[in-house]
Parts: sequence; C-alpha cells; structure tokens
Amino acid sequence: MKSFISVAPNSDFPIQNLPYGVFSIGAEETRHIGVAIGDQILNLAEIATLFDGPELKSHQDVFRQTTLNAFMSLPRPAWLEARTKIQQLLSDNCGILRDDATLRKRAFVAQSDATMHLPAQIGDYTDFYSSIHHATNVGIMFRGKENALMPNWKWLPVGYHGRASSVVVSGTDLKRPLGQTKAPEGKRSLHFLNKEMTFSADVPSFGPSKLMDFELEMAFFVGGPENKLGTRVPIEKTEDRIFGVVLMNDWSARDIQAWEYVPLGPFLAKSFSTTISPWIVSIEALRPYFVENPTQDPTPPEYLRHDDPFTLDINLAVTIRPEGDTEDHVVCKTNFKHLYWTLKQQLAHHTVNGCNLRAGDLLGSGTVSGPEEGAYGSMLELSWRGAKEIPVGNEVRKFLKDGDEVNLSGVCDKNGVRIGFGQCRGKLRPADI
Amino acid sequence: MKSFISVAPNSDFPIQNLPYGVFSIGAEETRHIGVAIGDQILNLAEIATLFDGPELKSHQDVFRQTTLNAFMSLPRPAWLEARTKIQQLLSDNCGILRDDATLRKRAFVAQSDATMHLPAQIGDYTDFYSSIHHATNVGIMFRGKENALMPNWKWLPVGYHGRASSVVVSGTDLKRPLGQTKAPEGKRSLHFLNKEMTFSADVPSFGPSKLMDFELEMAFFVGGPENKLGTRVPIEKTEDRIFGVVLMNDWSARDIQAWEYVPLGPFLAKSFSTTISPWIVSIEALRPYFVENPTQDPTPPEYLRHDDPFTLDINLAVTIRPEGDTEDHVVCKTNFKHLYWTLKQQLAHHTVNGCNLRAGDLLGSGTVSGPEEGAYGSMLELSWRGAKEIPVGNEVRKFLKDGDEVNLSGVCDKNGVRIGFGQCRGKLRPADI
Ligand SMILES: [Ca+2]
Ligand SMILES: [Ca+2]
Ligand SMILES: [Mg+2]
Ligand SMILES: [Mg+2]
Ligand code: NI
Repeated sequence: MKSFISVAPNSDFPIQNLPYGVFSIGAEETRHIGVAIGDQILNLAEIATLFDGPELKSHQDVFRQTTLNAFMSLPRPAWLEARTKIQQLLSDNCGILRDDATLRKRAFVAQSDATMHLPAQIGDYTDFYSSIHHATNVGIMFRGKENALMPNWKWLPVGYHGRASSVVVSGTDLKRPLGQTKAPEGKRSLHFLNKEMTFSADVPSFGPSKLMDFELEMAFFVGGPENKLGTRVPIEKTEDRIFGVVLMNDWSARDIQAWEYVPLGPFLAKSFSTTISPWIVSIEALRPYFVENPTQDPTPPEYLRHDDPFTLDINLAVTIRPEGDTEDHVVCKTNFKHLYWTLKQQLAHHTVNGCNLRAGDLLGSGTVSGPEEGAYGSMLELSWRGAKEIPVGNEVRKFLKDGDEVNLSGVCDKNGVRIGFGQCRGKLRPADI
Repeated sequence: MKSFISVAPNSDFPIQNLPYGVFSIGAEETRHIGVAIGDQILNLAEIATLFDGPELKSHQDVFRQTTLNAFMSLPRPAWLEARTKIQQLLSDNCGILRDDATLRKRAFVAQSDATMHLPAQIGDYTDFYSSIHHATNVGIMFRGKENALMPNWKWLPVGYHGRASSVVVSGTDLKRPLGQTKAPEGKRSLHFLNKEMTFSADVPSFGPSKLMDFELEMAFFVGGPENKLGTRVPIEKTEDRIFGVVLMNDWSARDIQAWEYVPLGPFLAKSFSTTISPWIVSIEALRPYFVENPTQDPTPPEYLRHDDPFTLDINLAVTIRPEGDTEDHVVCKTNFKHLYWTLKQQLAHHTVNGCNLRAGDLLGSGTVSGPEEGAYGSMLELSWRGAKEIPVGNEVRKFLKDGDEVNLSGVCDKNGVRIGFGQCRGKLRPADI
C-alpha cells in the first residue's frame, strides 16, 4: 500500500502507521486533530464529513475537538472504521483527496509549520514497573542480589499512581527540580558521588537534585467507554480499551526519590515533568509487530492469563545531546518486547478492584531495560548507580547534566514495513535557585 | 450575624459557614452551583448578576458552571468578595433576597429536594500521611516500636499520588473490591483472623478483600491560578491556593495493600472508591478555628517554615451503621488539630519541585488519629490489626462487614458559633463474584 503523499524511506509515518495527534498552525491558538503522513499532517477537522460509515457518521464532531478524548471514548469499531477510511483517503488509488487541490490545500499542513500539543486531557496517569531486567537491576542496587525482586513482582504487575498535571509533550524543556535529599541512615551507599554530594549523617539537604535521570518507557492511552466504578474489564475485553501507544520519558530525580519514597512510593522525584511523544500509534498499526508473550513462571492468577500474543517488538533507543553539541549520542538500545507483563495484563489488573478507567488515561510501562548492559533504560542502571562513566560524544556521564537534551525513539520494522513513534525530546535546564 | 433563612441550632450550615457545592434538583440532569444555608441551598446561578464587585462583575459566568473549577481558579480576592456578598444577601438586614418573593422562589432549593454531586472536576488527587499518631501506630504494627516512624517522616510531609477517577461524593455506595492478597513471607502476622483467612505459604489468593477499612481524613481543594510547571508556591503564598476543606473517607483494603504496596506504594487497595463530603467549607469560614501549630522538632527546612497558626480545631467522628440498624454508632472521636504538618506545609512541599497544582486538585490529610485509643481514625488502629473487637451497637467489628454504612462528621464550635461539614457517607456492598 502506498500514499499519494510522498513518504521518505526513513520516515516514521508511512501509510501503514497513521498515528493521531493534536496540533496548531504557526502562531494560531486553535488546536486541531490530525494524522501524520510522511512530513505532513492530515487535518481531520477539515475532512470530518468524509467519515460517513455506520460507526462515525453520527459522531463526526469528535474530529473537530481540540483533544482526542471524544474520539478515543468511542467504542473500538469506530477506531477501526476511522483508520480504514483515513488509509483509503490517503492511498494512491483514491481520488477524493488526491484529485481535489482545494481540499488538499485546506486539509494538509507541513509538520514543520505545526506545533504539537498533548494529544489528550489525561484524567489519571499510572506508571507500571513491568520490565524484569529493570526491577532486578534496581533491586540488586538497593537491596542486594538475594532480595532483588520483591515477592509480589511475578504475581501481579506492580504499578502506582503518577501525576497527570505535569505530563508534557515532546519539546517541552524542564527544570532541574529542588528537593530534600539524604543518604539512608547508616549507609554510605550514595557516596560514589562524594565530590558532588555532602550528606550530613542526620540532617537532610535541600537544593537542586544531583542525580537527574531519564526513564525509557512507553505508555498507552486508554480508549472506549468508561467501565463504571465497581466493574472490571476482564482480560478478554482489554483490547477494547487500549487505544494506542506513545514513547514516554519518566524523568526521575534519584536522590529525591531515595529519601522520600518510603513507605508510600515516588512523589516529587517524578512529578516535576513526564514527557510523551505527540503521536499516538494505534494498536491496529502495531498489529504486525506482536510477538509471543514471555513465559511467566509462576503462572499468574486466572484474571491475568491470556494466550494471544500481545508483546510488541519495538526497537527503542535513548540519545543524549550535551549543550552545544549538534548530535544526539546513543546511550541505550533495547526493545519493548523485554516487558514481562503485557499491556492487557496491566489493564486487567488495574480494573480488577473495580477502578474506573476513562478515555485519555495514560498507563506507563515502567522503565524498559533489556538483559545486557547497553540495554538499560536509565542512567541509574547504565552507570550502575554512578560506578561507571558512560560515553556521550566527547563527554562522559553518570547522571544528566544541565543542558542535556534527551530523546527517545521507537521503530517497528518487519517484512519491509517500518513504522516509528517520532520524537520524545526534552532539554534539562538549570534549577531555579 | 443572622440570616433571614431560619437555621436550626444544630445545623452545620449557619450564615457563618456558607460552604460551596454542586447540586441538581429532583430528576433534572442539569447541575448548579450552590451555597448551603440551614436546610436550604442558595442557587448561585440564579443570583449571578448580583456579584457586581470589582473582582467578580466580569466573571459572573463562573456561577453558571456545572462545577466549581472556574470559580475556584479565580484569585483569592474573588473568593473573599463572593463570600462577603453571599453573607450580605443572606443576612436578616438585607432586603434584596429577603423581600423579593419571586427571586427567593427561584433562588432557594430545599436540600431534601436536591442531589449533591462532586463539587469539582478533580485533576489530580494527592494523599498525605500527616498524622504522627497514625504514622506511629501503623509503623509499630508493621515494623515494630523501634522503627515506627521512617527517618524522613519529621523532615517532610510524606505523600503520594492517589486515583482521581474514583473519588465519589457522599451517598455513593461502594463494592467490596477483589484483589490479590498474601501473608508476608515468613510472617504469620495476619493470622489473628485465622478462621476467615487461609494463606498458602507461597501462592497469593484472589478474591474479595477480607480486611476492609475506612480512613478518617480531611482534604482541601486547590484554588487560584495554576502555578506554571517549574515554579514553586512559596510557603508565604500558599494561602492563595487553599480554597476550602471537605471530609474524606479513604476506604482501604488492608490485605490487598499489604501485598501490593512494596516498593511503589498503595494502588488497588485504595483506587476502588474515595468518598468526600459535598460541601466545601472555605478557609474564611474556618478562620476563627485556627489554633497554634504543633511544635515541630526537628525544625523543618526553611521552605516548610511558617509561624502563623494554620492548624484547625475541628472535632471529628466516625460512625458505623450495620445493615438493618437504624442508628449510626460512634467508633472514633478525634480532632483535626492532631495533624503534625499544616495544609500550608503540604502545599509548599508539593510544589517545591515545580509541580503544577490546578484549581480542583484535591489534597488529602492522611488518616487523622489522636493520641488515645478511641481517637484512632481507622479500624486497623482501633482493632489494633484485629487484636481487639470494637463495639458497634449490638455487634462488634474488627474490620468492616458488608452492609456497613460509614459516616464521617466534622464540627467547629467556638464562642457560640458552630459550623459543620455535613455528611460523608458510604455503604459497603458485597463483592461481585
Ligand atoms: Ca517509571
Ligand atoms: Ca489515606
Ligand atoms: Mg514523571
Ligand atoms: Mg481512596
Ligand atoms: Ni496530637
């Protein structure tokens, strides 16, 4: 299948992808819903009346909104109908757009002329912890090899509530956060950074975080009609609620986290910014890239069991571009298939207690680490808590420096069809003091 | 000061209170903003044009919304102007409403004819852990007397993100949640309920929670213009962001919590329902009831220091009404003044890393326990983890039974003026199996 819009061979957005996003044009304030194709955006508001199928003809207004929430909240058949229609309209053997210069002029915008925004209003954001390599690495560092994985880890997808208000879109700068930090009582475990950190034994310090990190994650947006509070989404029905996937950088201040997180979990160490990529890649676009699920031993409880492959083969990478540098330097290469728990299992678990999920909710995977050293999804793991230096162009890093710009990328490639996730970029600015 | 509306002496809502809420009338779907006075509601949409002061005359539309978010997002002087105006309009020496029978008929609704709704769209919900008696009790039970308080507890107000979608208004029933439970490895600590619970040593169970609990809390709604992501609210400015206070029952499934919460905090043990009272009592109404703050030793870091009294003297109680019973039976009496950290400190801490707070965000206090046994704000503490039976009318309880209806109440009483918070009620229904 080909589009009449020319798509460069290395583009993330061929006609097989068609991710959804929200954009504005130039200095305009108005936001529109669009689909990426090559280096263009198809403005769905301009072609809303062309959605004339049974699922969408009475819901064309969803394409004229300023967020994707209304569209995402329609049942899954509506998403499928929309994708089929958009793919048809963009294909090189359909004349409706191809041959109508006036409509084409209204409906297409160059990505270079557009500003991307958050694709949805995020009601609640949850972050899981579903990579066994990441959980094991962090466990070894903080609790030793014996107790690396907590006893619950293989029985349920561990997760926690995150902060929705501070989720930002790719390209938004962030400031190094201020906070309290303190070495654990009776441990000198953070002293590998002696020269940078001086902890009194008793009194916590206050100031800019000294251990700034990224977390390479992916996240999915919930879609479909809300399950009423008190009702579950059984695992067989979870696909009706998984709208699509984005890249996510769950920026983390490790020194703030170490001091604050006991016993109720991470809070200010994460809530200063979480960056997502602007384009939501639908499950339909990802379908060719599902592979067998990992073996789960022990077998999880019945409410978490499913056999259909729902593990995604997505090549992931993290780059850092130091201030003044002109290139992104790769510091991590891994794959999303290393996740132990599937997206279906995460969603079934999240609702098993009757918790209501609403269209626009964001569920993060947790840091994606592969089994080998170069495949770790955070500086904490890559530098093994500061024990090693990681080369970044002509420089080295243990954690992030002010001016570092971090980007995440994700690419699926199979049978000659390559789709990608675009950019998930953010630059770390100095703290306000 | 007196209102021309007659107010019973034991009413929670005299003219000194004037809490804000959202209601609908009879079977109507439309929601309105109102203020409680005695057993009546003053419908602010019907008197919006009377708000003609400098802060509100160009913002009268905020009173015609279906949530309080727009009103709450105005700067604090607008809240003060609104309160002064409403108090004036309701006072017995103002004729504007008193002498206009037609307007009065339109503007007043009996509370018995109204249905209350969530007062705001809650963007993010945070729960703190600010009662030293509660944190110590739970610490003793789970970690022993030596390690009861975590080292960070007296340095910062520990808090975590909660689930916003499942916050419900008083009167909403809830279902006993399903979930995974398991006794901690190598401990038999949950065996006081032997007859009810059978844990295998290795495999977690799945089913309805067997240790259902309430948590007596209060929570405040954030107001004022949003602090932009990356900027803090200094402690001197926090009052500009504290709109008002409600009662909150943070229902908890203790067995689910014990198994899931390590290392990232409570998740499904709480996200099945959190009940708040419908009427937001403003800080202005509460001002006469501020008392000296507790001594904090050690002195917290500078960003958390303030001298002005911001500790609230509010008498709190929890009642349980078993299925079929016709009376609420008191199981706990305590006071909000037992909080170690003030609301100002909670807000300053929450934003010190640059986290943006939006009008409508909800910040819970954490379970409020007093120093004595009868003043503990959860069944976990009252029954000391099931070691004691608590009398409830003709029955006894260690944790909650299906059919139990829990209510929270809060009353301020000083110099002959008594204001209250109304009801915060919820009935526990059996699990769906
Ligand atoms: Ca994370
Ligand atoms: Ca709580
Ligand atoms: Mg984050
Ligand atoms: Mg709750
Ligand atoms: Ni006390």
